[in-house]
Amino acid sequence: MSPRCGRAENTLIEGAGMHPLDIPTPAALIDETRLMRNIARMQQRMDALGVRLRPHVKTTKCIEVARRQRDAGASGITVSTLKEAEQFFAAGFSDVLYAVCIPPAKLDRALALRRQGCALTILVDSIASASAVVAKGKAEGHPFDVMIEVDSDGHRSGVRAEDPSLIDIGSVLHDGGAALKGVMTHAGSSYDLDTPEALRRLAEQERRECVRAAERLRAAGKSCPEVSVGSTPTALSATNLDGVTEVRAGVYAVFDLVMANVGVCTPRDVALSVLTTVIGHQAEKGWTSVDAGWMAMSRDRGTARLAVDQGYGVVCDLTGDPIPDLIMIDANQEHGILAGRPGAQSSAPKLPVGAMVRIFPNHACATGAQHDRYYVVDHGRTVASGCTRALSGFKYEYKTLHTTEKESTSPHDQRREP
Amino acid sequence: MSPRCGRAENTLIEGAGMHPLDIPTPAALIDETRLMRNIARMQQRMDALGVRLRPHVKTTKCIEVARRQRDAGASGITVSTLKEAEQFFAAGFSDVLYAVCIPPAKLDRALALRRQGCALTILVDSIASASAVVAKGKAEGHPFDVMIEVDSDGHRSGVRAEDPSLIDIGSVLHDGGAALKGVMTHAGSSYDLDTPEALRRLAEQERRECVRAAERLRAAGKSCPEVSVGSTPTALSATNLDGVTEVRAGVYAVFDLVMANVGVCTPRDVALSVLTTVIGHQAEKGWTSVDAGWMAMSRDRGTARLAVDQGYGVVCDLTGDPIPDLIMIDANQEHGILAGRPGAQSSAPKLPVGAMVRIFPNHACATGAQHDRYYVVDHGRTVASGCTRALSGFKYEYKTLHTTEKESTSPHDQRREP
Repeated sequence: MSPRCGRAENTLIEGAGMHPLDIPTPAALIDETRLMRNIARMQQRMDALGVRLRPHVKTTKCIEVARRQRDAGASGITVSTLKEAEQFFAAGFSDVLYAVCIPPAKLDRALALRRQGCALTILVDSIASASAVVAKGKAEGHPFDVMIEVDSDGHRSGVRAEDPSLIDIGSVLHDGGAALKGVMTHAGSSYDLDTPEALRRLAEQERRECVRAAERLRAAGKSCPEVSVGSTPTALSATNLDGVTEVRAGVYAVFDLVMANVGVCTPRDVALSVLTTVIGHQAEKGWTSVDAGWMAMSRDRGTARLAVDQGYGVVCDLTGDPIPDLIMIDANQEHGILAGRPGAQSSAPKLPVGAMVRIFPNHACATGAQHDRYYVVDHGRTVASGCTRALSGFKYEYKTLHTTEKESTSPHDQRREP
Repeated sequence: MSPRCGRAENTLIEGAGMHPLDIPTPAALIDETRLMRNIARMQQRMDALGVRLRPHVKTTKCIEVARRQRDAGASGITVSTLKEAEQFFAAGFSDVLYAVCIPPAKLDRALALRRQGCALTILVDSIASASAVVAKGKAEGHPFDVMIEVDSDGHRSGVRAEDPSLIDIGSVLHDGGAALKGVMTHAGSSYDLDTPEALRRLAEQERRECVRAAERLRAAGKSCPEVSVGSTPTALSATNLDGVTEVRAGVYAVFDLVMANVGVCTPRDVALSVLTTVIGHQAEKGWTSVDAGWMAMSRDRGTARLAVDQGYGVVCDLTGDPIPDLIMIDANQEHGILAGRPGAQSSAPKLPVGAMVRIFPNHACATGAQHDRYYVVDHGRTVASGCTRALSGFKYEYKTLHTTEKESTSPHDQRREP
């Protein structure tokens, strides 16, 4: 082995006085440079379009990520559970939209948050839910702030802008003493698109339908100050947001392989990856086994129905550069199988037992949720070399790592066994 | 509404002085009667076949479940991570097989457990891994207990029984001072079968290949006392386990819809379900939205490629009786969409906002891992009505619930809003 290889190994293995691989695998990594670039990109776009940005924190569920979004100019947060609302409120985020229609049994918990000073807005899309909200508000002498969910693309929940019940729901809330804060929609079908033109059309449809719902409510004498739209693909595709007051998006902060398929990022924008260690081989089959299975990656196979099926994820070296045509073709609970992409021309590199690689996930929201902390890696040709706790976060602790320059990024240099 | 219906409602809502629906949804429920029946079934089968049972605790990761398995006669446990090994050892389980091939970087952690008194057995399937294990053992003056993984069905990892390297691995371990405890295999391809005959054939293949590997090692002069095989489908299908000393299985404790497809249980054996609340409707489409999405169910679509595709799960009433042809057809992070099974004749019942139902999961291992605790419900016509903490568990706390008889199990009776 040449001295140069020896140095590369030493840099990788012993750099900065710490073992750079001294992270128990599997582990979720966040590339801070990419994260900050993604956050800035969306914020600049929203600033240019003249709307507020209310990030959805369900993607990383991480206080430190949300702080970076706030520091960049975001206004308030969106959550998908009351637990998220509670945790982020405890960390100083008081302007919170709970963007899932609330069932009656959750109103006590929502009320408790509001009585502690959290400006929590809740969501309904039916007369039944609106009635329960106003009944609770009256019983407790505490009117809720409420938005009505609008169905702008037929993909999930909400009431259609032209549906007569939209006005009925508004009346129940308004007459019942609730504060009708506005309307919101999420064009989730954007995840199924993959051309800029189709995305622009859906973004315009999302805007148009939600603004139309607000106009109908206003025409019926209801106050409806807010018009909230969004998904990462539509937010990054909209060219006109007239009538919209805020945009919600979540996955943009770290992106993933589904978003790369949709076309709103490239794999080199993906800031979340899973660090994993090679544990074995089936040489005849060209399989390399790693210690990240679906517990680490999630069971999400979101790229299966898209233009480029990435299996359970794209394999990268430790700097986050994809290894050509190497993907995780299958996963068990704590085993992943790496192999060449079906039909690939290039042969996969031989990764020895003990070598580490990173895997970009199909769906960051699903993969992030499988981990109880993130390790933060630095940009460019540097790599994590240990960790110290920075600030406690939510379910996920955000850890800042010492970084060290390295000369070689080849996993071949990571051989550790004799 | 008739007095009888009124009483049913009261029983459901106020029974036993507690609100029976006072479980924050979504929540993971374990049906204790089914759990105990499943545990007894497997233990009796293994007793009759004359082998020890070493349950895999990765399915529920729950100390209380493992204690019930031990009380029924199980011997030791199987784990899929060193974290599980640590947690279960701390709870008094000292005979632990870590059934994933160990990379060199995890040997320190394994050694720490052994030095604390844990009889931890580790696994290798390559000369590289075996060499790292013996090198570490020599350096630390602490020989490891090691098994060799055998590939009996080509589905994942392990060395073939006839592979020359099997003996080489055994020699590295034996000559290097490690204790070669035996051979183990997992015929995971059994999950893809669905006839008793095919399952019996694979069970016999799993036995034959693993016994053959042991015989080859013994013929080469290596001690190889243990022959460990297993998966739930093969364990429940084997009729002859000559030469086998122990069987490993995990999902049998709670079963799931994949196992029902395979044919080794029925839906009424499934002891794990997710409790969820109705949050809205898209009446034109026949959709009912609930607050359990893929965060609660997992992204596992294990039945998609099987005879009966169950979507994200089968919808049941609160007693665990399936509602005919009602399944979760789609899921977002915190939204599930319930609808009639494609092509179903019967129309789905109208479930009002606030009603609760239970969802049987495709894959119990994946669904259980999404929750940080289980709520335990009682058998037959009773239902959970509150919870008190019983014993602290692993990641998952096992909570025992007060139960109450109820007269009606129809979700229609659960209407809570005015």
